[in-house]
Amino acid sequence: MTEKTESPSIESLSCPLPLQHQETIVMGHGSGGKLMHDLIAKAFVPAWDNPILRAGNDSGVVSSQEKNRLAISTDAHVVSPLFFPGGDIGSLAVCGTVNDIAVMGAQPLYLTVSFILEEGLPVETLERVIESMRVTAEVAEVQIVAGDTKVVSRGNGDGIYISTAGVGLLDDDVEIHGANAQPGDAVIISGTLGDHGIAVLAARGELGFQADLQSDIAPLNGLITDMLAASDKIHVLRDPTRGGLATTLNEIAGQSNTGIIIEEEKIPIKPEVNAASELLGFDPLYIANEGKLVAMVAPEEADKVLNIMQQHPFGKEAAIIGHVTDETQNRVLMKTLIGSHRIIDVLMGEMLPRIC
Amino acid sequence: MTEKTESPSIESLSCPLPLQHQETIVMGHGSGGKLMHDLIAKAFVPAWDNPILRAGNDSGVVSSQEKNRLAISTDAHVVSPLFFPGGDIGSLAVCGTVNDIAVMGAQPLYLTVSFILEEGLPVETLERVIESMRVTAEVAEVQIVAGDTKVVSRGNGDGIYISTAGVGLLDDDVEIHGANAQPGDAVIISGTLGDHGIAVLAARGELGFQADLQSDIAPLNGLITDMLAASDKIHVLRDPTRGGLATTLNEIAGQSNTGIIIEEEKIPIKPEVNAASELLGFDPLYIANEGKLVAMVAPEEADKVLNIMQQHPFGKEAAIIGHVTDETQNRVLMKTLIGSHRIIDVLMGEMLPRIC
Repeated sequence: MTEKTESPSIESLSCPLPLQHQETIVMGHGSGGKLMHDLIAKAFVPAWDNPILRAGNDSGVVSSQEKNRLAISTDAHVVSPLFFPGGDIGSLAVCGTVNDIAVMGAQPLYLTVSFILEEGLPVETLERVIESMRVTAEVAEVQIVAGDTKVVSRGNGDGIYISTAGVGLLDDDVEIHGANAQPGDAVIISGTLGDHGIAVLAARGELGFQADLQSDIAPLNGLITDMLAASDKIHVLRDPTRGGLATTLNEIAGQSNTGIIIEEEKIPIKPEVNAASELLGFDPLYIANEGKLVAMVAPEEADKVLNIMQQHPFGKEAAIIGHVTDETQNRVLMKTLIGSHRIIDVLMGEMLPRIC
Repeated sequence: MTEKTESPSIESLSCPLPLQHQETIVMGHGSGGKLMHDLIAKAFVPAWDNPILRAGNDSGVVSSQEKNRLAISTDAHVVSPLFFPGGDIGSLAVCGTVNDIAVMGAQPLYLTVSFILEEGLPVETLERVIESMRVTAEVAEVQIVAGDTKVVSRGNGDGIYISTAGVGLLDDDVEIHGANAQPGDAVIISGTLGDHGIAVLAARGELGFQADLQSDIAPLNGLITDMLAASDKIHVLRDPTRGGLATTLNEIAGQSNTGIIIEEEKIPIKPEVNAASELLGFDPLYIANEGKLVAMVAPEEADKVLNIMQQHPFGKEAAIIGHVTDETQNRVLMKTLIGSHRIIDVLMGEMLPRIC
């Protein structure tokens, strides 16, 4: 056997500092200086590249395409864990804001992204999230036009928090908002309820059993575009996220000064979600969704809109689940499986913390 | 002496739960349900009231006022402590985004605000920040049109983090950006350097002595409006925040492919900032400012612009500190007090963490 002498390799002779910095987030990545510029140049710009971002100015300059109205929204995202079946904090952050704009009937076009990173975060984790945001933005056909990164020391964050804001363009003749529900309107849900909340719980290991369930995270602007092209009698659109469908319907009833009656047997819920909810004492009506919308549509156009929704990948399981009424003002009632009516109130307290 | 019997007062008989909820932030304030709606209705809406926010929809709908171009920006804010002489995280969050839009020559009009609150935060602290944001937004003449609140459990945050995003309207003929510096341009700074960074350090008790110094936090859009009205030969505007003037000048030199020469004796710095910097081994050129701007202006209009700036409350101590040159390409040089030239590089590593 020949014995090798241990001589330093070229790698071990090179300065270890830059490599170490690439491995985990350090406070300097939020400094505004060299390390931050490197992070932007190496991680953000290549993934999200577009001329607006590349210009490197304090704001992204974009076109309003001669539209007179803008829809503007923001969401903070603190979901735990960062990755879960069907999505991650990155896809969630893009879809959350895209959907808030799309449900106004606006076309979401521009996103801003601000990160609060915890010192010690593996850069690889950040890069996975950046890539997920790239893919989701591509599917949603939105551009990321501005960003910011701050770093907090260990114990003052939890890996990655993301706030997104977005701007959409709104045609002059579109009037879709929470105060526009009208008695007689059909209430349509675009698919099954509670998938996101239960999928995140499963990823936390809090279910106590294995569940083969994915979050429903999806950008809904494509589905909404199809719906708006088919009907000009869509009065309300909203995505039932935190607080679930129950809270969303109550918000709309309150804003529109109407009542809403839904029918339990018509509400699409996956068996796994039902099983998990029963076990944990949750009601799927209150569990967060991240790729679903509820629509109030004039009765004469409800079937047409439903049909259009069912032809879209994100609306395949759409169903008419009830109607708007002037009889139970500001109240949401559910006709239960046994034929009685019960009042559906908003979510009280906290059911599933850090679900989005 | 008469002995009083201890009988329960009316206060102690009333249900303590709602009061307790009002005293500190609990996880339920981020639930999307009743507690969150209450927080919005009681704390946010009264302070920031406007028809757009009051509509309570998923996006704020605003007018683009027939402008074809929008400037869009975002900033996360994690400053510690939350309150410091001259400002707080709320005024910082409003001004940070307002200034990023204003330095593009755009008129900032609409802001979004997303909070990440730590469980246990006194609601009173949040209300102070909300009020500070109200006042600052009023001064800056911007409307808060959308918001979001998430709550993380104790130990996963640090009281309050705020991300703001903003939208401004940009006239067609305005071309102010980092790539537009031209050889011969005068370099103007709007006032003293380093006030914000040293004021925050002082509030942390890290100076080791008492300093009577205030942060320079200010919305710069009014000052910029005056400057733009006076001259159409302003080529670059930027606010030297994290990384300080040194880093900002390097960014502009790089984007514009020019050199910049500044003169040490002309740079306005308060004696207290100089003293603190010397003591701590900092260079004021690298310390964050939150109410200053640097302008590159064609030489024939520099004095006129300087004069206009000095008439504005946020530009009283404005000074011409150097010029753009094609001789030191992409480099920033400083002529020192003793007459030599030294290279001014970007900030390396981290000097003052969580300064904004």
